[in-house]
Amino acid sequence: MTAKTTYNVAVVGATGAVGQKILKLLAEKEFPVNEIKLLSSKRSAGKIVAFNHKDVTIEEATPESFEGIDIALFSAGGSVSKQLAPEAVKRGAVVVDNTSAYRMAEDVPLVVPEVNNDAIKDHNGIIANPNCSTIQMVTALKPIKDRFGLKRVIVSTYQAVSGAGTQAAIELQQQARQFINNEELEANILPVKGEEKHYPIAFNALPQIDVFNENGYTFEEMKMINETKKILGDQDLSVAATCVRLPFFTSHAESVYIEVEKAGVTVQDLWKELESADGVILEDDPATQTYPTPLSAADKEAVFVGRVRKDLDNENGFHLWVVSDNLLKGAALNTVQIAQSIIKNNWL
Amino acid sequence: MTAKTTYNVAVVGATGAVGQKILKLLAEKEFPVNEIKLLSSKRSAGKIVAFNHKDVTIEEATPESFEGIDIALFSAGGSVSKQLAPEAVKRGAVVVDNTSAYRMAEDVPLVVPEVNNDAIKDHNGIIANPNCSTIQMVTALKPIKDRFGLKRVIVSTYQAVSGAGTQAAIELQQQARQFINNEELEANILPVKGEEKHYPIAFNALPQIDVFNENGYTFEEMKMINETKKILGDQDLSVAATCVRLPFFTSHAESVYIEVEKAGVTVQDLWKELESADGVILEDDPATQTYPTPLSAADKEAVFVGRVRKDLDNENGFHLWVVSDNLLKGAALNTVQIAQSIIKNNWL
Repeated sequence: MTAKTTYNVAVVGATGAVGQKILKLLAEKEFPVNEIKLLSSKRSAGKIVAFNHKDVTIEEATPESFEGIDIALFSAGGSVSKQLAPEAVKRGAVVVDNTSAYRMAEDVPLVVPEVNNDAIKDHNGIIANPNCSTIQMVTALKPIKDRFGLKRVIVSTYQAVSGAGTQAAIELQQQARQFINNEELEANILPVKGEEKHYPIAFNALPQIDVFNENGYTFEEMKMINETKKILGDQDLSVAATCVRLPFFTSHAESVYIEVEKAGVTVQDLWKELESADGVILEDDPATQTYPTPLSAADKEAVFVGRVRKDLDNENGFHLWVVSDNLLKGAALNTVQIAQSIIKNNWL
Repeated sequence: MTAKTTYNVAVVGATGAVGQKILKLLAEKEFPVNEIKLLSSKRSAGKIVAFNHKDVTIEEATPESFEGIDIALFSAGGSVSKQLAPEAVKRGAVVVDNTSAYRMAEDVPLVVPEVNNDAIKDHNGIIANPNCSTIQMVTALKPIKDRFGLKRVIVSTYQAVSGAGTQAAIELQQQARQFINNEELEANILPVKGEEKHYPIAFNALPQIDVFNENGYTFEEMKMINETKKILGDQDLSVAATCVRLPFFTSHAESVYIEVEKAGVTVQDLWKELESADGVILEDDPATQTYPTPLSAADKEAVFVGRVRKDLDNENGFHLWVVSDNLLKGAALNTVQIAQSIIKNNWL
């Protein structure tokens, strides 16, 4: 049997912020689509959405929607994935799931193609796309780990509101307008939609992303900890995270402290690995005030790294500033890259 | 000789953001002022400013301005302090200096009254007020260090624009308005006034506060590192810092990782020390989404601590979220507290 050359692709959650970016990337990257099927909740069914300059009508996602589908890209929330991903697999599709539903399942590969592409081939129908803040960090850490070993990671994040969905981004915009008009800031979404308390995000910082776990960490923090270990394939790696939501729209930034295993490593050594790493762009020159920022990384595909410094007390310690568009490499782009890898390697 | 009961006080930089807060606090706290002298650059001389419901005319600061002054509070930039603080001392005043000019000088105490009040008595005329981001961190760490020992500190900061002066705060406000009006964001001040490049701060994060040192760290980062060791009186303490400017007006927040010396310490142990510590308010209850934020800490005097968690890999490691008003405890309040301690303890 020869491999197919074009594929029937379903996008679940096609009207969402990430779904829309996925459609844009599939077209831009000339993904070999035979037929595209755009799926969503009942509420959005019937809407018309453009794909590759053609209008496509959105259909309600049901188990039967996946008949004849080769690749299904899910980005409609964990409950939809839990319900429908197995139905898609049952009907012969390979699912790339951009929710947290299957990320930590033992038989589901959790993949960042630049880091652990080969894990895809062991899939049992579902491949999970990691959490946004995890993806950019492991992409930057992988070349360092490969060359110098990695013992420890302590990260403090600076995360954009778009990671909490379109409504959160609208809320920031509204609060900024309220501030300019000297009105009180109205908070209904952040830090977590549906939770008891809401705090303004405009001109503020919220040290809560997702709900709290019993151990005092948020789920976002636990995702970074657990997913990093799984993707880097090292359960002994020490990972600690503090996740903070901030008033910007796009791109997450991360202040990352690492300890490498090898002694005598220099900043220049790290620069060299980062410069040649897949998916990474080094932007690091204090003399010219060159470093990435959320605004400079927005709408770009790479993971940008700057502010590389050696720790002043620990010979094996380094500090990095890692920035990437949370909707692209952090979500839609990584999903599309996994799909590309599946077909390129004939791992359907 | 009996101690005086009222004092002649000079405030240098009386028209600045911190100078104004100092005047407000001196009045609110009923500091025993005999005569007040408000000093500034030639440019602001002649302006009239209210102090304790009376109008006071600002005078140009000259060496002679300090004749008859008991206590001089300097907050007009490092070059003014370098030039005039020795002149004030020569004329018998004790100087509390809120610039970086003398902080690391060996014969100048660097003081946070809750932490190292007794250091004041060894002054030779000048007492230095630490950097804003350092003050709030050491205030939170002191009770922990006293009880459990402290080996290591790794901090990532989330700092308000007001720390870069009134012009930076106006720039954020203007950029927010430009954003709402769909105009391009104009950047002329941040990250550092007078530097080559400027980046928008609205809806962004800038990993540069103050200029770069040759070792790749910014001066703000080096201040946090060096000042923390000096104030806590421990040159062997490991301190690492990454300092980031963010789009909010008031209060710095800090994600702080610490390692204590004692084994078996729990989150409850840390809560207990923080709850009873001078100048610290514990706001930490994940069940009710209780934690401090820049907006909640603004205009308050305390250092607020939340998100206390035990590290999941290191038995002696903990994470804290520390927030305080950078213009109050981070600047004006700490300055006034030092002045209060000087007169209370008769350390003039």
